[in-house]
Amino acid sequence: MAVLCKPAIAVPEYVITQEDTLELARRLHKDHTQLKLVLRLIEHTGVLTRHLIQPIDKVLKHPGLDARSEVYEEESKARVPAVVRQALDQAELEARQIDLIVYVSCTGFMMPALTAWLINKLGFRSETRQMPIAQLGCAAGGAAINRAHDFCTAYPDANVLIVACEFCSLCYQPTDLGVGSLLSNGLFGDAVAATVVRGKGGTGIHLERNGSYLIPHTEDWISYAVRSTGFHFLLDKRVPGTMEPLAPALRAVAQEQSWDAGNLDFYLVHAGGPRILDDLSRFLEVPHEAFRFSRATLTEYGNIASAVILDALARMFDEASSLDGHRGLMAGFGPGITAEMALGTWTSGSAE
Amino acid sequence: MAVLCKPAIAVPEYVITQEDTLELARRLHKDHTQLKLVLRLIEHTGVLTRHLIQPIDKVLKHPGLDARSEVYEEESKARVPAVVRQALDQAELEARQIDLIVYVSCTGFMMPALTAWLINKLGFRSETRQMPIAQLGCAAGGAAINRAHDFCTAYPDANVLIVACEFCSLCYQPTDLGVGSLLSNGLFGDAVAATVVRGKGGTGIHLERNGSYLIPHTEDWISYAVRSTGFHFLLDKRVPGTMEPLAPALRAVAQEQSWDAGNLDFYLVHAGGPRILDDLSRFLEVPHEAFRFSRATLTEYGNIASAVILDALARMFDEASSLDGHRGLMAGFGPGITAEMALGTWTSGSAE
Repeated sequence: MAVLCKPAIAVPEYVITQEDTLELARRLHKDHTQLKLVLRLIEHTGVLTRHLIQPIDKVLKHPGLDARSEVYEEESKARVPAVVRQALDQAELEARQIDLIVYVSCTGFMMPALTAWLINKLGFRSETRQMPIAQLGCAAGGAAINRAHDFCTAYPDANVLIVACEFCSLCYQPTDLGVGSLLSNGLFGDAVAATVVRGKGGTGIHLERNGSYLIPHTEDWISYAVRSTGFHFLLDKRVPGTMEPLAPALRAVAQEQSWDAGNLDFYLVHAGGPRILDDLSRFLEVPHEAFRFSRATLTEYGNIASAVILDALARMFDEASSLDGHRGLMAGFGPGITAEMALGTWTSGSAE
Repeated sequence: MAVLCKPAIAVPEYVITQEDTLELARRLHKDHTQLKLVLRLIEHTGVLTRHLIQPIDKVLKHPGLDARSEVYEEESKARVPAVVRQALDQAELEARQIDLIVYVSCTGFMMPALTAWLINKLGFRSETRQMPIAQLGCAAGGAAINRAHDFCTAYPDANVLIVACEFCSLCYQPTDLGVGSLLSNGLFGDAVAATVVRGKGGTGIHLERNGSYLIPHTEDWISYAVRSTGFHFLLDKRVPGTMEPLAPALRAVAQEQSWDAGNLDFYLVHAGGPRILDDLSRFLEVPHEAFRFSRATLTEYGNIASAVILDALARMFDEASSLDGHRGLMAGFGPGITAEMALGTWTSGSAE
């Protein structure tokens, strides 16, 4: 049985508050015709602090894609190893016991992916399989958990390392002035997360079922334009409303397990923005506080893309309120519009 | 049991011969100090024709990354659907019987990946899982087969669609003048390939085992520099010699199955260049003709990246010489340096 262990999280040292963000928006876009709307939307995110890999002055100066690619490589190599080591420690495994590394990151692109460097650097076996995924955006945290689950279903003795490395500040585009872009500039943060799915043993979430759902004909609602200046994030204003079509998909996956999605013990979902959490609460008919882990991530770190769901999970571990057999739902949401959903049961079982 | 069915292949309509390529190299690089070496290397590839999505004059003019990204999207949407439909027909499945789409492409980047559009456009179920992989380069053809195999091991009733869409000509960089770059300009071609791995039934290769191997400390031997002009392919001159360290890895995977890698009935490997095939023949001690499918792909289409292994497989189907129980080895090679290896047995069993 596949068990999702406690994630390790690292947020970078440069902190920007919501007040800083609002001040910047007022200064940089003082003549923007929709500045008031933008300020209101940023305030409404509930994001109070974000952590960035560089000082904000540096973030705001686009140095060109060549330099950004180099920063991505340097910073990921500097920041990922410690998080991976902590995740392995928490899962009580050594690097050479890992059979697959799922590396998800939508905010920088390297070929080969960081997986090759990690294998060489951190003592993973040369036979470790690599699954780098760059194109599932914020849904990739859920996808990583689900593909790790599938792998452990195929190979019950296998262990999978998941790494989510998201430096959203490297996608800041000073020339993008649409409301969606200005909102995004106040929403996204940087973080690195890692965790292990153990095939045997471990404390955490016993993964029982997973599923995916694509909302028909929404593939241009969240997208990148890939330009000479890098990835330009395009966010359609209909995105915050997507929980209405996704709630039935979440219910359907739970139903396959004979569970009621509205009556579970825990919920760990991608906190893309505040409305997603409010709407899920409404459409699944669960209390507001059911999403406290995801909301805390959003409030303290912002939308850290594929790392949100792992950070929310780490907070649930820290709260230490789960009891054996508690049932829960996890979901990542991202471009497609895609939901990657998982059902699991809390288990405190030690290594078999 | 997972069966890899007959791939569908489409190469584009613009053909460039080796003589055209040599003539171009002589004209464009007449003052290059290593022109003679470059011409000799290009001749030595054995690539006689390549197929391109645009006329060569257009390929040679870099229109900027913005325009190239648009061409990638347009051309993939124009060329992939027919290949997917043919692959489904050959596997005797309908779109809605597919549970996972593995989409591999290292020559263009879209977010969301083409998977979302394909699901919407071709009648796949909204619940179809998506696995887009952009960062395994030429090894991704092998990786796609192996992850499809794993998925069918986890879910024995599942069917997986694999799509490899490689427009290598969109990575042509006129300012890259190193010998490796000029050689690459004469080596790579464009192609789209698709196939299905059926969980139950089907004619083709019954997938029995797979494995991955990373040659230690070679992660910068094949790489992209990601710049404002797009992906710049960097090829170390040591790459053609990598079959010496990889042959023991191929032998080891075969040994796990109690097979002798030097004594199998068929071989389908990534034909990165002629030396790879010659060296594999030498290090595995198998006859030159064992690699006739891969060599034919290289000769007629050039190195079509992740699509090579699927095209070689299609040629084996066309030769129709395989008998039930014939055992074979498949392998993709790419950045990392990574080998994605698979073992399988020919089966003509019809749908159960």
